[in-house]
Amino acid sequence: MSAIPEDFINKTSRLSEEVTQPFPNSRKIYVEGSRPDIRVPMREIQQSPTLINDGQEENPPVVVYDTSGLFSDPAVEVDLLKGMPDVRSAWIMERDDTAQLEGPSSEYGAQRQGDPDLAHLRFEHIHRPRKAKPGKNVTQMHYARQGIITPEMEYVAIRENCRLQELRQDPRYCKLLRQHPGESFGANIPDEITPEFVRSEIAAGRAIIPANINHPEVEPMIIGRNFRVKINTNIGNSAVTSSIAEEVEKMAWSARWGGDTLMDLSTGKNIHETREWILRNAPMPIGTVPIYQALEKVNGKAEDLTWEIMRDTLIEQAEQGVDYFTIHAGVLLRYVPLTAERVTGIVSRGGSILAKWCLAHHQENFLYTHFEEICEIMKAYDVAFSLGDGLRPGSLADANDAAQFGELETLGELTKIAWEHDVQVMIEGPGHVPMQMIKENMEKELTDCFEAPFYTLGPIVTDFAPGYDHITSAIGAAQIGWYGTSMLCYVTPKEHLGLPNKEDVREGIIAYKIAAQASDLAKGFPGAQLRDNAMSKARFEFRWEDQFNLAFDPQRAREYHDETMPAQAHKVAHFCSMCGPNFCSMKITQEVRDYAEQKGIGNVDVAVEEGLKEKAEQFKRTGAEINKEI
Amino acid sequence: MSAIPEDFINKTSRLSEEVTQPFPNSRKIYVEGSRPDIRVPMREIQQSPTLINDGQEENPPVVVYDTSGLFSDPAVEVDLLKGMPDVRSAWIMERDDTAQLEGPSSEYGAQRQGDPDLAHLRFEHIHRPRKAKPGKNVTQMHYARQGIITPEMEYVAIRENCRLQELRQDPRYCKLLRQHPGESFGANIPDEITPEFVRSEIAAGRAIIPANINHPEVEPMIIGRNFRVKINTNIGNSAVTSSIAEEVEKMAWSARWGGDTLMDLSTGKNIHETREWILRNAPMPIGTVPIYQALEKVNGKAEDLTWEIMRDTLIEQAEQGVDYFTIHAGVLLRYVPLTAERVTGIVSRGGSILAKWCLAHHQENFLYTHFEEICEIMKAYDVAFSLGDGLRPGSLADANDAAQFGELETLGELTKIAWEHDVQVMIEGPGHVPMQMIKENMEKELTDCFEAPFYTLGPIVTDFAPGYDHITSAIGAAQIGWYGTSMLCYVTPKEHLGLPNKEDVREGIIAYKIAAQASDLAKGFPGAQLRDNAMSKARFEFRWEDQFNLAFDPQRAREYHDETMPAQAHKVAHFCSMCGPNFCSMKITQEVRDYAEQKGIGNVDVAVEEGLKEKAEQFKRTGAEINKEI
Repeated sequence: MSAIPEDFINKTSRLSEEVTQPFPNSRKIYVEGSRPDIRVPMREIQQSPTLINDGQEENPPVVVYDTSGLFSDPAVEVDLLKGMPDVRSAWIMERDDTAQLEGPSSEYGAQRQGDPDLAHLRFEHIHRPRKAKPGKNVTQMHYARQGIITPEMEYVAIRENCRLQELRQDPRYCKLLRQHPGESFGANIPDEITPEFVRSEIAAGRAIIPANINHPEVEPMIIGRNFRVKINTNIGNSAVTSSIAEEVEKMAWSARWGGDTLMDLSTGKNIHETREWILRNAPMPIGTVPIYQALEKVNGKAEDLTWEIMRDTLIEQAEQGVDYFTIHAGVLLRYVPLTAERVTGIVSRGGSILAKWCLAHHQENFLYTHFEEICEIMKAYDVAFSLGDGLRPGSLADANDAAQFGELETLGELTKIAWEHDVQVMIEGPGHVPMQMIKENMEKELTDCFEAPFYTLGPIVTDFAPGYDHITSAIGAAQIGWYGTSMLCYVTPKEHLGLPNKEDVREGIIAYKIAAQASDLAKGFPGAQLRDNAMSKARFEFRWEDQFNLAFDPQRAREYHDETMPAQAHKVAHFCSMCGPNFCSMKITQEVRDYAEQKGIGNVDVAVEEGLKEKAEQFKRTGAEINKEI
Repeated sequence: MSAIPEDFINKTSRLSEEVTQPFPNSRKIYVEGSRPDIRVPMREIQQSPTLINDGQEENPPVVVYDTSGLFSDPAVEVDLLKGMPDVRSAWIMERDDTAQLEGPSSEYGAQRQGDPDLAHLRFEHIHRPRKAKPGKNVTQMHYARQGIITPEMEYVAIRENCRLQELRQDPRYCKLLRQHPGESFGANIPDEITPEFVRSEIAAGRAIIPANINHPEVEPMIIGRNFRVKINTNIGNSAVTSSIAEEVEKMAWSARWGGDTLMDLSTGKNIHETREWILRNAPMPIGTVPIYQALEKVNGKAEDLTWEIMRDTLIEQAEQGVDYFTIHAGVLLRYVPLTAERVTGIVSRGGSILAKWCLAHHQENFLYTHFEEICEIMKAYDVAFSLGDGLRPGSLADANDAAQFGELETLGELTKIAWEHDVQVMIEGPGHVPMQMIKENMEKELTDCFEAPFYTLGPIVTDFAPGYDHITSAIGAAQIGWYGTSMLCYVTPKEHLGLPNKEDVREGIIAYKIAAQASDLAKGFPGAQLRDNAMSKARFEFRWEDQFNLAFDPQRAREYHDETMPAQAHKVAHFCSMCGPNFCSMKITQEVRDYAEQKGIGNVDVAVEEGLKEKAEQFKRTGAEINKEI
């Protein structure tokens, strides 16, 4: 850890401008729900009109799902030292099933809070943690099963819809909302996501809202097969590189480009304090792998881990507000030898720690044996399980083997137990899998884990493209997302090579936004094709600025265009550098279309077949003139 | 065109070092066929040994398919002014069915050759063109149907196998050759590609070898569903940017990174001379879209195009040595109005030119009406058809519509005609298609076009990621390659925004090599998993140098690694920057494995269950010691 206090404060009180600058020609909007404190953020991308012969045609704004939090709202001055405003406290308080504690109830939490040497690193406005009142269960699943629609559920329903119902009433969107039917492989996506639908999906375990009662800053989102496919990003320092300041900036950077959730995988020093800074400023759910920190507490000796240390770590992190925990409770002693003949053994860090522990003690994985106790912790704060795939394949060679699938079956067994406690669950998946073996993963997960949301890393579809694994894995991610995976864990170009920098994070996120969008389209998620249609229309009409603004990455689109067409005049040019002004297919098509319209050819074959000789002659002359004009 | 003669010569007599530097730790090898002049280039990537307790274990070299031509052979000094050495002339001469002409038989070719003002631009060693003797047919398909196995066929058989049969006899490769079974969707890939199998596939029309008798420099390759999936790259100047020198360098650059064929899509001035330079130096088949040049000859006025101009252009290019022509003969008059209501109309340049011509004259597409005459030209030089999809969708909205599929049916009709002339055919495909609609494209192509090889652009699976369309399209390409497409036309990150520079070409090629490799693995192409397995083993054993060398892009892999781990010591470190030295899952797994082996746990569950308490205690101590050592 290289963070020096002065540096740290200077760096993190304000984010860099590239993180906070608003998206071009976009407006941050908040859609209000049934009560004024349900205000769901979206982004409206404004478009310029289409110039037509006798005036102009309006192109209505495109509403898009917005993960960027307040960082992208020009009306809000973000002060990281104070943290983000509260979104959910009123909702949590109203439920009257939690109590504020005197202070951290974990030993480690109390120790860190009381250590004067850490004052310079500490976030200044730490609230005392909340916890369920004795005998209470505060999970979204618990409420859902009681038939209660929480504000969180209404919030995500509004968020998933992206105003589709209103747009459908607006004639300007008529053509833009055309969409191909999907192939959903058994998913059951309704035409409108209602709060009641959200509730029923959560009650059934098919979806989760990761939202710890100690993370009131979170803007709720939902992970489930019948909702938009989400993406997760990872950040985290390690002993070798990176500082707290960088991690907070990366969190905001991830929000900007479209990360739906974020895992803090830090393994270096001061990870407690790093996590606090991230949580207090994070609009997205935060996940962790608590065993990483537990291992730090025993100086990296896996065999010295105990349930007591792990338990204290879970409580410590739950009281900070972590929204989901990766728990490798499926790495059973009997599966470990199944990995000995693998090409790449155990590649999950958590998995290998537990395998080592199991072998060293010749005892069953303590996360498995203490699973019900973990559930008790989870339900007191509403932390969701992300049941870790500690035995996921690290190479194509090891894909879909006995170790991997054995663990998956155990994760299904654990899912049932968690659900008995009304604790929310998602299931982690691979890894490295060749394309023809991806579907089996999805199908087995749905069967063995009773449709709990699947959350996969890639999968990577070929092993030998280091430097390009955002691509190898986006190929697999798009497929598994289509087949039914609910959330895709991103991979950056640095995968297998080093820690990602900001540019790598951006590349990884965009690759995964593409995969998720491709999945939504393929599943037939309602409204998913709106932005595609708007882009295509802008493209055909040479509205270059609109093309940049509608892009996942407006900045890059503009930069690339400017490399060959730098002049401002080219932004309105009816041609581009690919073909030059005299040879543009789009332009020629427009001429064909204009002609067809003007002469009444329209869409009728008969008209083409008959009486067009004369029109053809006219067109010949007109066409020649048009060409001369250029 | 900005090329100034002095510049041109200076630039192109030698390629840049980045194009010609040999791949690290690689050896160019030539595998000899049944006669000494069949010498098939491959690349052997050498590996370092694995250090094990009592010495070291050899890791045998990995043989890879090599498209890089002589540019990557350190034994050859490439002089672009002289062109590449001849590969095929002896084979062509032996067949004794061609004659050398006095000079170009196209008007335009003769005119360009005779123009003294062009001397400074002209390649110096132009051979007089060859042509089939009267009544002769010199296509590979014609020979195949006579039962003749040509040297070209044997060459590609050797090339496809990549020495697999020999490696199978070598015990060092035993584990490395393990591979998951594929799902081939009806493809029929044999365990060994024999010359006879090549012949039978070509005779059936399921595969083509694009190899014009006037392109003897070509290193033959095969395009077909039962062979390795290939990729095509595009280069080409336009009126706005780029020079001849740049295009030649890009051709070699494309060869280096893995382009199997290359299309010269130049639309600017001097495209005849540019093409000559490219052909005389190109180890890969070259394709063109002759109508682009024909249009130049009528000053860009589509309606002024005539069959005579087109015919002269076809002969001109065939006599230069172009290996395949994109011919948009399926853009029929009756399909044009079907595009009027599309979101993006006609986006193919060739398609829009012909649509304009059809409407202007109200006549049927002259490429369609003169198709048999085109066949006569094709078979006199062995130019293969790439039947163009002039009505391909330019947006998701337009995917799989009546215009697109109508044209595809016509391409099937034309395929039959071409085959009556024994002319080789492949079929071009889309475009922009959402994932759930990709398979229909492949299935319809196989049915309507009688299994002629499919050659697709992408498809792009979402429209709004300009700047990242190498990724949006690699996702679609991997899928359609798996389903049965024979060649994938690459897309660069600049697609829809501008002309690609060298870096974009590299990005686009690697994205497509990934897609093609993922397809080969998924189809179960024999030996396809070898390099993946070698990489995974190297990864697990922390052989960093081997990981770089085995990568598609060794240079990038090394650069990315060096960003966080620059010291040379880190190249042999048993950890990396992702987790740091004390926390490495690979390392922990190795400890687990060593222990399992040492203590005889092996793979037997019973051993784990019984009598391991004592061993566990030992391991606990050992483990602690191991950790202390770090």
